[in-house]
Amino acid sequence: MRFFSDNTGGACPEIIDAIATANRGLEKAYGDDPWTRRLDEVLSGFFARPVRAFAVATGTAANSLSLATLSPPYGAIFAHEEAHIVCDECGAPGFFSGGAQLTVLPGAHAKVTAERLQAVLDAHPVSVHAVQPAAVSLTQATEYGTTYRPAEIAAISEVAHARGVKVHMDGARFANSVAFLDCHPADVTWRAGVDVLSFGATKNGALGAEAVVFFDPTAVKDFELRRKRAGHLLSKSRYVSAQLLAYVETGVWRRNALRTNALAQQIARAAGTSLLYPVEANEVFLRLGAERKRTLRTAGFEFYDWGPASSGEARLVVSWDQPESDVTALCEALQHFSDS
Amino acid sequence: MRFFSDNTGGACPEIIDAIATANRGLEKAYGDDPWTRRLDEVLSGFFARPVRAFAVATGTAANSLSLATLSPPYGAIFAHEEAHIVCDECGAPGFFSGGAQLTVLPGAHAKVTAERLQAVLDAHPVSVHAVQPAAVSLTQATEYGTTYRPAEIAAISEVAHARGVKVHMDGARFANSVAFLDCHPADVTWRAGVDVLSFGATKNGALGAEAVVFFDPTAVKDFELRRKRAGHLLSKSRYVSAQLLAYVETGVWRRNALRTNALAQQIARAAGTSLLYPVEANEVFLRLGAERKRTLRTAGFEFYDWGPASSGEARLVVSWDQPESDVTALCEALQHFSDS
Amino acid sequence: MRFFSDNTGGACPEIIDAIATANRGLEKAYGDDPWTRRLDEVLSGFFARPVRAFAVATGTAANSLSLATLSPPYGAIFAHEEAHIVCDECGAPGFFSGGAQLTVLPGAHAKVTAERLQAVLDAHPVSVHAVQPAAVSLTQATEYGTTYRPAEIAAISEVAHARGVKVHMDGARFANSVAFLDCHPADVTWRAGVDVLSFGATKNGALGAEAVVFFDPTAVKDFELRRKRAGHLLSKSRYVSAQLLAYVETGVWRRNALRTNALAQQIARAAGTSLLYPVEANEVFLRLGAERKRTLRTAGFEFYDWGPASSGEARLVVSWDQPESDVTALCEALQHFSDS
Amino acid sequence: MRFFSDNTGGACPEIIDAIATANRGLEKAYGDDPWTRRLDEVLSGFFARPVRAFAVATGTAANSLSLATLSPPYGAIFAHEEAHIVCDECGAPGFFSGGAQLTVLPGAHAKVTAERLQAVLDAHPVSVHAVQPAAVSLTQATEYGTTYRPAEIAAISEVAHARGVKVHMDGARFANSVAFLDCHPADVTWRAGVDVLSFGATKNGALGAEAVVFFDPTAVKDFELRRKRAGHLLSKSRYVSAQLLAYVETGVWRRNALRTNALAQQIARAAGTSLLYPVEANEVFLRLGAERKRTLRTAGFEFYDWGPASSGEARLVVSWDQPESDVTALCEALQHFSDS
Repeated sequence: MRFFSDNTGGACPEIIDAIATANRGLEKAYGDDPWTRRLDEVLSGFFARPVRAFAVATGTAANSLSLATLSPPYGAIFAHEEAHIVCDECGAPGFFSGGAQLTVLPGAHAKVTAERLQAVLDAHPVSVHAVQPAAVSLTQATEYGTTYRPAEIAAISEVAHARGVKVHMDGARFANSVAFLDCHPADVTWRAGVDVLSFGATKNGALGAEAVVFFDPTAVKDFELRRKRAGHLLSKSRYVSAQLLAYVETGVWRRNALRTNALAQQIARAAGTSLLYPVEANEVFLRLGAERKRTLRTAGFEFYDWGPASSGEARLVVSWDQPESDVTALCEALQHFSDS
Repeated sequence: MRFFSDNTGGACPEIIDAIATANRGLEKAYGDDPWTRRLDEVLSGFFARPVRAFAVATGTAANSLSLATLSPPYGAIFAHEEAHIVCDECGAPGFFSGGAQLTVLPGAHAKVTAERLQAVLDAHPVSVHAVQPAAVSLTQATEYGTTYRPAEIAAISEVAHARGVKVHMDGARFANSVAFLDCHPADVTWRAGVDVLSFGATKNGALGAEAVVFFDPTAVKDFELRRKRAGHLLSKSRYVSAQLLAYVETGVWRRNALRTNALAQQIARAAGTSLLYPVEANEVFLRLGAERKRTLRTAGFEFYDWGPASSGEARLVVSWDQPESDVTALCEALQHFSDS
Repeated sequence: MRFFSDNTGGACPEIIDAIATANRGLEKAYGDDPWTRRLDEVLSGFFARPVRAFAVATGTAANSLSLATLSPPYGAIFAHEEAHIVCDECGAPGFFSGGAQLTVLPGAHAKVTAERLQAVLDAHPVSVHAVQPAAVSLTQATEYGTTYRPAEIAAISEVAHARGVKVHMDGARFANSVAFLDCHPADVTWRAGVDVLSFGATKNGALGAEAVVFFDPTAVKDFELRRKRAGHLLSKSRYVSAQLLAYVETGVWRRNALRTNALAQQIARAAGTSLLYPVEANEVFLRLGAERKRTLRTAGFEFYDWGPASSGEARLVVSWDQPESDVTALCEALQHFSDS
Repeated sequence: MRFFSDNTGGACPEIIDAIATANRGLEKAYGDDPWTRRLDEVLSGFFARPVRAFAVATGTAANSLSLATLSPPYGAIFAHEEAHIVCDECGAPGFFSGGAQLTVLPGAHAKVTAERLQAVLDAHPVSVHAVQPAAVSLTQATEYGTTYRPAEIAAISEVAHARGVKVHMDGARFANSVAFLDCHPADVTWRAGVDVLSFGATKNGALGAEAVVFFDPTAVKDFELRRKRAGHLLSKSRYVSAQLLAYVETGVWRRNALRTNALAQQIARAAGTSLLYPVEANEVFLRLGAERKRTLRTAGFEFYDWGPASSGEARLVVSWDQPESDVTALCEALQHFSDS
């Protein structure tokens, strides 16, 4: 019973079908195919606004290529201190940007706040001696499975834009947040000031597909050259584009997110007081202690320690194809802890 | 009738089957899955020697990550002046390596020669004023669809290694060369001194899969960190690894290559004196002139100009799934030119 | 009366004499001159151990070239959150290293502590998902004008080396710390585990000269190529080397440091309770409040605000050629505050 | 008798005086000093047009920072195949730009021609697959001591600008060319379409000073941040700025260049038929053969082989402070060869 990560999930039937359908005959390579040519239109519809969208195979590529387009080498990129781009991408933003500097911010529930960003920007000298503020990156859903509200994002964007700082959103679990908020995808992106979105599909049922969505198309030429140069323009682009089209057009993005969110809520309810953060996506963080973690693992539950093993904390993530029985069993085990 | 590139081909049934088979339940991400764990073993068998092998999704990633591992930022990377890494990857080796300098060599049939490499290395100063020789990259099959013989590679490797220069092979069409030579994959790689191979599968029937094969494992840790940092470690690695396993284990690598080589030979025979280079893989280069190119295109044949449109030259590439009728029709059209 | 920075000072007579003496006839360029050839020997004497020493013109060059030699692009470089390399070099370490990630540590008196470093290293995952610990950089004297004791450095080095992390020292004000401690230069460098030192002379009386001193010579070839490539190998190297030789051989390094330290102590005593940090070099930090700062400025004292202007804090730095009367006048003004 | 390079020369009296004069009391650091503040004005006068000028200490810094400002990481930089930026700066343009690709052009007398550049640009694909043309760099005087005529530069600039390519001039020996042409500095720079000039002083009598001169100020902010980040903003900027002011205002730039040009002409006349290229600056290239080179060296003449030692070619460079007797002796020796 694997709760390691939503990356442990497979690809859902709609995605596999889309790949199979795209697997017909000879098509032009490097994005000049019928699927890729529809990406802009379909994602413009999804976001209710003309956008430019580009397919890549990984979230790290989506995030770092976005940030390299937004930040010069001498830029500062602001992010929460536990953001994926800070802790889990082996310094990718520094590599892609030519050495831009990550400036990390604390914040409850893994969220950047407008107040903290404002304070940091106010204290940041305008001079050649320091990297200059270029971009802020928000993770939606956050590393703790919480979700920024539209107003929170808008407040951050306002602070950022007032200083000429662009707003990037790492939406590896974007669908989960939109499903949780029951809002329009536009509400937590361009309507709230987001300039570029890494729109993840992989964690939520794709085989390997992420879209970089530009709400402001001015940086697009730069992006395309950087993508090629980084080896992220797929020669047989049709397959990644077909995944993204299916993800959006079949509604599987929402269906999968609703399911994993609901299962995560079930776990949260069973966990009771051991719950660390509000569950606003498909991740559950628990303070269990060493013994209960051992008990769960002995019972066949697989999950990662959160922080050092000694912390007694655990992260459990629900995948789109998580058997319902896994969750039921987990809930029973957790309730057993509460009862004892 | 598309002869643009073998990148226009789809994914062959064996590959699609492998993906479908891998699409079962929850598996650990980032390479800790049963398919990826078998890569080293299977490719060690394929190359008749213990190797370390890593999956990535694109040829540019395979080439550039390899070269960045072999060359320091102040290194010189030698390659033929028409090599893919020089002309078609938007400067990727410079990006991945942190600014290593490409030093291009002329050579008939798009081949680097040992003599020319020796001369260039002899003339290259050992000093802090110049980038220092680090790697030579050979393309097998070459950009002109020719194939290095084992002895040619061995001679180049000897020259390179004597100066401490590593040998990289861009094997985007590796299968075609091995099939053409009817040799063991080892004969044109480690037995001939190759240190790292970009072992391409995408052009020859995979959906998107290339293996970086290290015959000398010392640089491997560095490679793994660079791969992650470049966004080329796929979270759901099982799908790319499964493709590579199927590519090797089903023998489709050879079957597809034999077929496309044979069809290219047919075209070559039909082309007669318009043939520019010996056909030793699945690519055919023709000197047709503007009018004949127009005639072919009007008749429904699609292909790229080679060099400036005014050159009258054309490149035609056979894909693994090229309908035989496309080739038959093309041959007839070409013979018609010869007869007229 | 300028207390902005010790960078406002000129070049001291010994340095100017050395330049004039070196200005004789035709000498080989790029370091193959008699002055540069003596650098290793003279600095080996100074540090009581065989070292390799390289001259550059700026502290940013010295620091960043050192760090790029110690850290791969996927390395983590640990430093105090207010270190010069973090706040005042426009992201230079990221540029020179190809994107290594600065990881900042808090610490009283602008010091990294062994305990904090240990904790951070313990929590740092060994995996391809995170940058890997490569170097820790200590500033001696620190950004707050405090000085690491030999035992503090040794403790940090022990923690670092146990994890394979190299120790760099930014010694822009190295002489002030050695003079303050009244110790041998070896005591706060290699005897305490420092691997590479940026040995500053510019702030303490040189025109523009810093030595990068390698106590472990293995990385030296790499350094030399990086230095050239970064434009930091001076063609007429004799002038920068002559400065460094004079700085060490005439004893001016110590004489100037003793003077500026003593004057800073005078100011500290006059400042009384407004003193923010112990004065262990030539910098004094005061909490004055807006009105007293205005009073001082009106009276002709020039200095920088420390932090935002609203903080009421000020930094005053004594230059080697600071007129004694400047200090006397400042002390009087400060005492007047205390008395009032 | 050293004819190695003009980098073997010392600093001329005007430069030393300027440094001494600037060495008075406490001045603001990092360019906020009276000398640096006059740079723009004085160089605007020199070039008869408003310019922005920035001081650095080395030619490699001047060239590479200029080029990094003109070219994105995915840019192509065109230069003659023997240009200093290609052969003698250890890959600096690749480092500073984040991996821009040098594309080398052949050309008689080490000159790029408009025709060749046009042909290369015409053949260069506009696509994401190749680096995109960004800048062309001309060396004035060239690596062979020849000088571009204003019309040659203008023709190249016209070709470049028509494709959106910027024009950089590496003017390490700019004064020699202007003195040779007896023209206004504007005639071979902005009037001929040059966008950015590396205006060298070091080789022609300065201690270590080069100006980067922007004729188009739009890229200036970017340049300033890159300069700081690369460690090329000198803290005690007054000394490098004072050198540049003296270089221009005393007329020593012209006086030294006229002297070394004239001495080089003397050598050229004595050399007779062994002369390889027209002497249009202060460098003389001779085809001497192994024996005559040995004879000269035995007689005390020091110089570099040009190309491999076996080529029999030699480069002799006259420094601003070359004793006249060195040249007389050399001429006699060369005439002796001709007579024999």
